[in-house]
Amino acid sequence: MLELATAGESHGPGIVAILSGVPAGLALDIGAIDRALGRRQSGYGRGARQQIERDRVEVLGGVRKGRTTGAPVALMVRNADSRLDEVPEIHAPRPGHADLAGHQATGAPIRDVLERASARETAARVAAGAVAGQILSAFGIAVVSRVVRIGAAAAADAMPATPEGFAAADGSPVRCLDAAASAAMCAGIDAAREAGESLGGVFEVVGFGVPAGLGAYDVPARRLDARLAGALMSIPAIKGVEIGEGFAGAALPGSRFHDEIVHDHAAAPRAGGFARRTNRAGGVEGGVTNGMPVVCRAAMKPIPTLTRPLGSVDIRTLKPVPALKERSDTCAVPAASVVGEAVVASVLAEALLERLGTGGMEELAARFDAMIGRLGGSPEK
Amino acid sequence: MLELATAGESHGPGIVAILSGVPAGLALDIGAIDRALGRRQSGYGRGARQQIERDRVEVLGGVRKGRTTGAPVALMVRNADSRLDEVPEIHAPRPGHADLAGHQATGAPIRDVLERASARETAARVAAGAVAGQILSAFGIAVVSRVVRIGAAAAADAMPATPEGFAAADGSPVRCLDAAASAAMCAGIDAAREAGESLGGVFEVVGFGVPAGLGAYDVPARRLDARLAGALMSIPAIKGVEIGEGFAGAALPGSRFHDEIVHDHAAAPRAGGFARRTNRAGGVEGGVTNGMPVVCRAAMKPIPTLTRPLGSVDIRTLKPVPALKERSDTCAVPAASVVGEAVVASVLAEALLERLGTGGMEELAARFDAMIGRLGGSPEK
Amino acid sequence: MLELATAGESHGPGIVAILSGVPAGLALDIGAIDRALGRRQSGYGRGARQQIERDRVEVLGGVRKGRTTGAPVALMVRNADSRLDEVPEIHAPRPGHADLAGHQATGAPIRDVLERASARETAARVAAGAVAGQILSAFGIAVVSRVVRIGAAAAADAMPATPEGFAAADGSPVRCLDAAASAAMCAGIDAAREAGESLGGVFEVVGFGVPAGLGAYDVPARRLDARLAGALMSIPAIKGVEIGEGFAGAALPGSRFHDEIVHDHAAAPRAGGFARRTNRAGGVEGGVTNGMPVVCRAAMKPIPTLTRPLGSVDIRTLKPVPALKERSDTCAVPAASVVGEAVVASVLAEALLERLGTGGMEELAARFDAMIGRLGGSPEK
Amino acid sequence: MLELATAGESHGPGIVAILSGVPAGLALDIGAIDRALGRRQSGYGRGARQQIERDRVEVLGGVRKGRTTGAPVALMVRNADSRLDEVPEIHAPRPGHADLAGHQATGAPIRDVLERASARETAARVAAGAVAGQILSAFGIAVVSRVVRIGAAAAADAMPATPEGFAAADGSPVRCLDAAASAAMCAGIDAAREAGESLGGVFEVVGFGVPAGLGAYDVPARRLDARLAGALMSIPAIKGVEIGEGFAGAALPGSRFHDEIVHDHAAAPRAGGFARRTNRAGGVEGGVTNGMPVVCRAAMKPIPTLTRPLGSVDIRTLKPVPALKERSDTCAVPAASVVGEAVVASVLAEALLERLGTGGMEELAARFDAMIGRLGGSPEK
Repeated sequence: MLELATAGESHGPGIVAILSGVPAGLALDIGAIDRALGRRQSGYGRGARQQIERDRVEVLGGVRKGRTTGAPVALMVRNADSRLDEVPEIHAPRPGHADLAGHQATGAPIRDVLERASARETAARVAAGAVAGQILSAFGIAVVSRVVRIGAAAAADAMPATPEGFAAADGSPVRCLDAAASAAMCAGIDAAREAGESLGGVFEVVGFGVPAGLGAYDVPARRLDARLAGALMSIPAIKGVEIGEGFAGAALPGSRFHDEIVHDHAAAPRAGGFARRTNRAGGVEGGVTNGMPVVCRAAMKPIPTLTRPLGSVDIRTLKPVPALKERSDTCAVPAASVVGEAVVASVLAEALLERLGTGGMEELAARFDAMIGRLGGSPEK
Repeated sequence: MLELATAGESHGPGIVAILSGVPAGLALDIGAIDRALGRRQSGYGRGARQQIERDRVEVLGGVRKGRTTGAPVALMVRNADSRLDEVPEIHAPRPGHADLAGHQATGAPIRDVLERASARETAARVAAGAVAGQILSAFGIAVVSRVVRIGAAAAADAMPATPEGFAAADGSPVRCLDAAASAAMCAGIDAAREAGESLGGVFEVVGFGVPAGLGAYDVPARRLDARLAGALMSIPAIKGVEIGEGFAGAALPGSRFHDEIVHDHAAAPRAGGFARRTNRAGGVEGGVTNGMPVVCRAAMKPIPTLTRPLGSVDIRTLKPVPALKERSDTCAVPAASVVGEAVVASVLAEALLERLGTGGMEELAARFDAMIGRLGGSPEK
Repeated sequence: MLELATAGESHGPGIVAILSGVPAGLALDIGAIDRALGRRQSGYGRGARQQIERDRVEVLGGVRKGRTTGAPVALMVRNADSRLDEVPEIHAPRPGHADLAGHQATGAPIRDVLERASARETAARVAAGAVAGQILSAFGIAVVSRVVRIGAAAAADAMPATPEGFAAADGSPVRCLDAAASAAMCAGIDAAREAGESLGGVFEVVGFGVPAGLGAYDVPARRLDARLAGALMSIPAIKGVEIGEGFAGAALPGSRFHDEIVHDHAAAPRAGGFARRTNRAGGVEGGVTNGMPVVCRAAMKPIPTLTRPLGSVDIRTLKPVPALKERSDTCAVPAASVVGEAVVASVLAEALLERLGTGGMEELAARFDAMIGRLGGSPEK
Repeated sequence: MLELATAGESHGPGIVAILSGVPAGLALDIGAIDRALGRRQSGYGRGARQQIERDRVEVLGGVRKGRTTGAPVALMVRNADSRLDEVPEIHAPRPGHADLAGHQATGAPIRDVLERASARETAARVAAGAVAGQILSAFGIAVVSRVVRIGAAAAADAMPATPEGFAAADGSPVRCLDAAASAAMCAGIDAAREAGESLGGVFEVVGFGVPAGLGAYDVPARRLDARLAGALMSIPAIKGVEIGEGFAGAALPGSRFHDEIVHDHAAAPRAGGFARRTNRAGGVEGGVTNGMPVVCRAAMKPIPTLTRPLGSVDIRTLKPVPALKERSDTCAVPAASVVGEAVVASVLAEALLERLGTGGMEELAARFDAMIGRLGGSPEK
């Protein structure tokens, strides 16, 4: 039921989100939404525009006296630069963007396509994802992220075992927890900027505290892994998604892949005590959460805009021309990881609310506790 | 509008699919559906059950005198072994399957969970996907696949440039086009079976002839890449999905990633002549097809059932017990690649029909031709 | 989540339904489904075909050992007459049917249109609705119906206050509880048949025991009244839908319309004791149930096929011709009221499950009881 | 694909709408949206609030230089009175509103419920409906309305045969075309106000120029009549919906109901010349448009707020108290008819775009013309 609609252009009045299905009675921390928006704008390798904009959310609906009302939550993030009718038309579509394909899909001028296809739209998803994150948080679920690769530089450290272990990501200019890799990533970004290049990378999003039994195994589109993959792949510039071991797991023999089941109540309080010593599945088996951390990774392509413009064609003359350079980030992987948190939080909150049903937060909290109790896990049961 | 509902259990009467939104007037080749079902059952590394079942589709609705009527197409694939009420209960959930998490999600006995979560369900998706494939085929679009990795053995050959280049996959026991890799894969499977092991792998699905402009850039969930990723990840045992360069692309600099645009009518007849010399994007930019082949890859984990059972817990006693061994395939990657074709065909047909609207095949064919003509691409235009 | 897909033609192998979202653990009474199918086939005024068919449901999925598994429930009702490829083509579309408009919508031959647009499809909805009814029944909710008008003959009795009061409808040849009206309806049908005429009418469907708080007021499409209206209007030949006082209420002054609120625990055990002495709203206020019986009425047009064929045009020659007479019922209002029960039960079960969330029947029963407890209604609370 | 999300409260910053699926290239007349909003606010019998608010739409997304871009259109209508955090809590739920049932559904304070359940929300639907109306208008389709009953006063005139015939409704204080009835309605409203009463009524919405073949007969929820009924019933205070003859038709014999088919190209240019001399079906047969005007009527209950407050119960003390009087309209049927136009326009535009597919307005216009040409209707064809 948690459903999100977004609208808005890069140079329009702003970005708008309507999130319906938010239960009534959630004390909404607007500052936390703004902090998420701020994290989306930060990161080593961003260009000038991110500095001019300090995104702040305005709540247009669904909240009274700081609490959600159960009605759709409407959010707006205004654009600092909103001269939509004055921005120039574009005739040379940029490779790697929606420009040409989008124009061919809708017949709209290229300017219209890029205004909407811009990553600016992800501000709406981050704002809505922050609301979803606060729903999750009320149930003790935390969604965090880190960057594990930028260009050739990859983190070598293991995934932290707790959400707190991810906290340091906010302190790294590239949201990487491995200090050496972090330095290498920054150096790589400097070198790329110098060379007129851009870089992509890989980020990891992890949900901690997710109870067993979210998602579905019986209807393909309702599988949690399918929904996570769809949500992550819908982030601009994402070209790959993994859950758990992902592609590396395809090369392992079965005996080194699967997570054997043991009973240990303390180790799996949200899975009825059915614990795992490993988590190669990334917390999802058969489309359903198993109580282990939900671990996703996404691969981002390098930003398409380079100092040396890519070759394009003028759609009026059909003659070769260089593509427009619309912006100048060198690397946006840290920002994308914040968007990744948002979409994963949205999927998890949606799955949690499906499981719990509708009603106010107080009623849902009682259902959650009863659900956890029913998952099994005490010999007396 | 193309919407699929499936039902059925592994040991029930059969697997059922209702596919609505199929245009009227498509001459449906039932034999081709059966061949797709047969390809799903084949492949080196499958166990005994695949031999006893020779899947054949029965059409229960939506077809008269060999042509679709526009009404929902209902398909059934009967099970050879349909003693559902007699199969034993299970109390030791199998790691790597939905058994435990599914039981915790629905409260159903483990037997109920595994009956539905079984890969047997994919017979419905293959049958429906074969219908989608015939819709695509009427518009000159072909969806093909090959296996590129099984365990440690990976194909070294380049992706063929035409659908015909994939035809040999059906002749390989592992659906691999690289003869040396094919042999290595078979040897790997033999060794794994010998060792009581199982293997996963990676397959590639490619859509050829896809016109530019399918999908969307303005609504995240309608992006074609998001839908492809969701569909592929919904196949049992898939843990990773890539489009185009995917994860490898995350390590490349921008100048070696993006597909520059040139004008060459002959090279891009379904993209208005806006051609690319490379296809690192895998045919999707900004969530929309760009006229190049749509290239996806999916990573499958090794099958969870080993000769040496994995450790589990009896859900009644909470004592450690070995997990049940329900079946005995060693590797199902070739079969999964056939399922991959089906789900990719379903997503592409859905996106194509969204673009073309509703109406009979004849009307849609006229719209398709006009659409191709409008994509641009001749200097005279 | 309760979602229904149906397929099948009037002269095909049968009618198929896939109902997903049915909770696990419901003891499914197959006989009760068959009885609902039988009631759909009965009623004074039906033609010969209803006699040759004795519909029985086959369960193809979602049930093991008599209990739902949580997986989609697949049902099939076979057709006695299934020579689909042999039925003749039709060129003179029948007024009042989908024949012409459907042909113009899809390009399909008229025969294809009428095969699917046939009221035979409602067998699927009755079967699925019987499953929904059994879900409701497990929560003490009953959905019943009666016919209140056939042609000029209208029932004069008040709506019974309990579901038991509706039981006698099954004993009336026209499902009418008012004996005098019942006789007049039968006489009217006899006269109409004699005159080569057909008759429509009005039926009433009532949900008893529906707890307060189902539906939604914040999203228009999720309002319960909107969903009831859509579902009832989707039954073939229905041209009007009312809830509570409906059209008559439009003529009343406000002081005689609204249902004042009193507190009386015994009178409103499923609404927290917030009771009403009247029920002009028909149990729905602001799109949400208020604990009073949910009362809907639907108007059915007379069956379009008359002994004297209606004027039509041959779509090949464009010359006037009489329309085909495909069947010979005189009146199908009693049957439609059974379909009405099915669709109302489906909507109510869907709304109930949205409120309760997912999980097995046992977990949902506990949530239901807790929900009722939270509705308020005792001074101690 | 045309999908609407709305948000906003009666006393919040405003009402927000996101309408996705609007084709690119539509010249959007903002003034026309404002005029529709103004018409929603007018009408004899409205209270003070409608005077203080002069609704004007702000476009937040989806439009550049006066043309739709193909991206979601975001609209906002600000509230004049937006002190949401200062409005008082309410403890005595008003009969006839969502107050109590909504509170029981979501656990939200009654104030939160009524803020969202307020008819103020329909401003969003009117704004979005005006966009839908402009889409339709580009294809020569007009959606108009009139009031046919207020309380005991009913219009006696026949439905006009053209959209122009409805134009005078905007000149009537009650949107009624029959001058005598109009006067009687005003007098009735005066008397009701005097008596501390309120009145309901019936309005009619008609779509002219609708081509044959919109909607569907094969999937119940996609039938056009089902969607019209759901949309109209989702308007606050609507308790009944009819299409064509509706309830009156239930009393007619078949020979006086059905619309015989003749061939007359001039009479049915958008139905291939397959014309009808009557329109008892209201333009929809078997769930599909037949080229005749689409005729719907909806019954509105009297406004629940009276000068003499209705009896209620304090939800804290459970003691009897009078219900709050939140507003003071006597009759809102004229306003509801404007909302009715909006929702009918939205449904028709959605069905039209489903039929035509996606792409820019220019491409869709070409498809529309070709579609009309294919509907048949010339002897040469």
